[in-house]
Amino acid sequence: MTSSYRTLPTMGGRAMARLAALSAITDEPGRLTRFYLSPAHRRAVEAVGAMMQEAGCDQVFMDDMGTVIGRYEGTTPGLPALVIGSHIDTVRDAGSYDGTLGVVAGIGIVESLRTVDLRLPFAVEVMAFGDEENVRFPTNLSSSRAVAGTMTPGTLDAHDEDGISVREALAAFGCDPERASAAARRREDVLAYVEIHIEQGPVLEAKNLPVGVVTAINGASRRRVTVEGEAGHAGTVPMSMRRDALACAAEIVGAVERLGAVDAHTVATVGRLVVHPNAVNVVPGRVGFTLDMRGPADDVREKMVEVIETAARAVAARRGLELTVEPFYDAPACPCDERIVTGFERAIHRLGITPYALPSGAGHDAMAMAALCPVGMLFVRCKGGISHNPAESVTEEDVDVALRVLFEFVRDFGRG
Amino acid sequence: MTSSYRTLPTMGGRAMARLAALSAITDEPGRLTRFYLSPAHRRAVEAVGAMMQEAGCDQVFMDDMGTVIGRYEGTTPGLPALVIGSHIDTVRDAGSYDGTLGVVAGIGIVESLRTVDLRLPFAVEVMAFGDEENVRFPTNLSSSRAVAGTMTPGTLDAHDEDGISVREALAAFGCDPERASAAARRREDVLAYVEIHIEQGPVLEAKNLPVGVVTAINGASRRRVTVEGEAGHAGTVPMSMRRDALACAAEIVGAVERLGAVDAHTVATVGRLVVHPNAVNVVPGRVGFTLDMRGPADDVREKMVEVIETAARAVAARRGLELTVEPFYDAPACPCDERIVTGFERAIHRLGITPYALPSGAGHDAMAMAALCPVGMLFVRCKGGISHNPAESVTEEDVDVALRVLFEFVRDFGRG
Repeated sequence: MTSSYRTLPTMGGRAMARLAALSAITDEPGRLTRFYLSPAHRRAVEAVGAMMQEAGCDQVFMDDMGTVIGRYEGTTPGLPALVIGSHIDTVRDAGSYDGTLGVVAGIGIVESLRTVDLRLPFAVEVMAFGDEENVRFPTNLSSSRAVAGTMTPGTLDAHDEDGISVREALAAFGCDPERASAAARRREDVLAYVEIHIEQGPVLEAKNLPVGVVTAINGASRRRVTVEGEAGHAGTVPMSMRRDALACAAEIVGAVERLGAVDAHTVATVGRLVVHPNAVNVVPGRVGFTLDMRGPADDVREKMVEVIETAARAVAARRGLELTVEPFYDAPACPCDERIVTGFERAIHRLGITPYALPSGAGHDAMAMAALCPVGMLFVRCKGGISHNPAESVTEEDVDVALRVLFEFVRDFGRG
Repeated sequence: MTSSYRTLPTMGGRAMARLAALSAITDEPGRLTRFYLSPAHRRAVEAVGAMMQEAGCDQVFMDDMGTVIGRYEGTTPGLPALVIGSHIDTVRDAGSYDGTLGVVAGIGIVESLRTVDLRLPFAVEVMAFGDEENVRFPTNLSSSRAVAGTMTPGTLDAHDEDGISVREALAAFGCDPERASAAARRREDVLAYVEIHIEQGPVLEAKNLPVGVVTAINGASRRRVTVEGEAGHAGTVPMSMRRDALACAAEIVGAVERLGAVDAHTVATVGRLVVHPNAVNVVPGRVGFTLDMRGPADDVREKMVEVIETAARAVAARRGLELTVEPFYDAPACPCDERIVTGFERAIHRLGITPYALPSGAGHDAMAMAALCPVGMLFVRCKGGISHNPAESVTEEDVDVALRVLFEFVRDFGRG
């Protein structure tokens, strides 16, 4: 294991070197693919564990859901911990920063604390979760939920495409699945959870800011909508006699775009739309599409969902078409802890940067950890808002800013 | 061969009996499928030929593209002919009336002329074309084009899915493909072509009329449109920063619907639309769709195409998206002969019915025959405007009206 990053001058530079080392650990040659409990994930666990050791953690271990945990004690051993974490699993053909950045950030903080031999009135734990992208198994944040003590029943029996269960994969990984629930931490042992993550959106780049403080992880509502009109010959049915399902759906898409912007932080998307029979010379008889509606405030989002559904029904009714709406996902927003938000803002301000608050449109391990303790997140600007893609890109300068903000935050956290 | 229809009282009743007999001739048990040059088509040729003989044609033969022709001489043998025709091939799982109705109508006219022993100052020929639906081969009205002398070069070398060429299929059918071009008729031998066909649209039903006179077979323009925006995370990209290809396409679909109705006889349809990547949580990055625009007047249709393309470009430009438009089909309208239109209207009026004129949105053999002689068409009301479907339905009463109109027309044609 190389230690070249030790010689790099900045926290950002050392983080970038660790990120480069981890991004080489993949199940697919030529691209980064590291699913939960895969061989590459196992090697990443080893590498992250070694980095934690090297950074100066007092204790490094893996829990029975595959989460790597590095603990740096406070002024006395056994104090409750501030947890810094994120995940080291990836999507297929992933970028190098989604998740992993938050893990190496935590390692960097421990390294800095150890370098200046600073012990705080609380422990710091770095957690590298394994099941955030939820690509291999039909699970949902299972490793961070296990830590929070809210693992979904049936998680261990979920199967991947090859018929391998989480239980079997855990055993092969070196975990004891029967002890998975013992990964749960006691509330009195965890003070808070903070996570650094790439923004995965274009806002910070547009604002020309290296970092932003997350106010909430957006709640989301999803609906499957079906518009039933009447198929007809594109040449023989006059415009005035048509019940064109696509024309109706298109009008609804326009309403979704308009009504989704009720405030600057709500979004509404028709991402999937399928036309039947989908032939050049046939007036569409049926269209199915999805609605994805998100926002940081549950009441605002719920009102938006209602207004959009009402508008869609009105469009269909005016056109004499049938419309059905089927909910298939509703998750409340996860607000970030106000004291953590303020702490991050104070730290950013201290670096001479304008604090900027924004919601997270994507889900994160912080959502699971919120069941256990107050949570907060810091976003780092990423190029073009691109993520889940090899083109994912952050600068060393921005990572350095994020690490310095986090270090300020951690030091300050002790004084709160 | 049964002759039960001989004893039926009305022309409509006899036509319905012939239609029922022909609809039993299929290549697929349980449903009507009769592709060009198939075994069922061969049996249908025999059956139609027998019906022509029985109805009183002086001469019945098949040309070398498989068209069955029954000729009923005028006052002297060898006079130029009024041709009454349509096609006896079908789509897969077809209805009983599309095409075949026009053939049995011609047979019914000859039968009526023979019954009253009426010889006209012109011959009447009934033509049963074989390649109108163009399902089996990638051809285009090849049998009526052969009669018109405008067969597309390469037609004989077109192949079906099994690699069988039109040439080989014709030989197996009992035709001499090397003599296919001899099917062409001389202009001086053909006075006009008239075709009775089901409407394949809902207009006559809505107007509560049994028949309508076709003014023109609509011209058509088709375009492939691609909208290139930018894919993005449905949670993290604010509404104000999106370049949503589907929202853009939806706005264009709305414009197409509005601008397609420039007059009562134009139509414009987005029948096919495909979204990329088409996932619930991704802002669509690219949408491809088709435009199908038709109208009875070429100048009106061309103006409509231009206005729609301009509107689409304006929508994309305003949203900052790329739009490409690729023409892939343009066919001029085929106007029906004014004297034939007037003749049909006079005949309808004489039966105490209000003449109603409408364009044909679908293509017909009359389009091919228009290269040879004046053409005209009479539409018969069909239930729900449904065609290309076993649910295709016409009433005996309406067919009887159509036959009586056609008989009036033919008698009158001699006096024009």
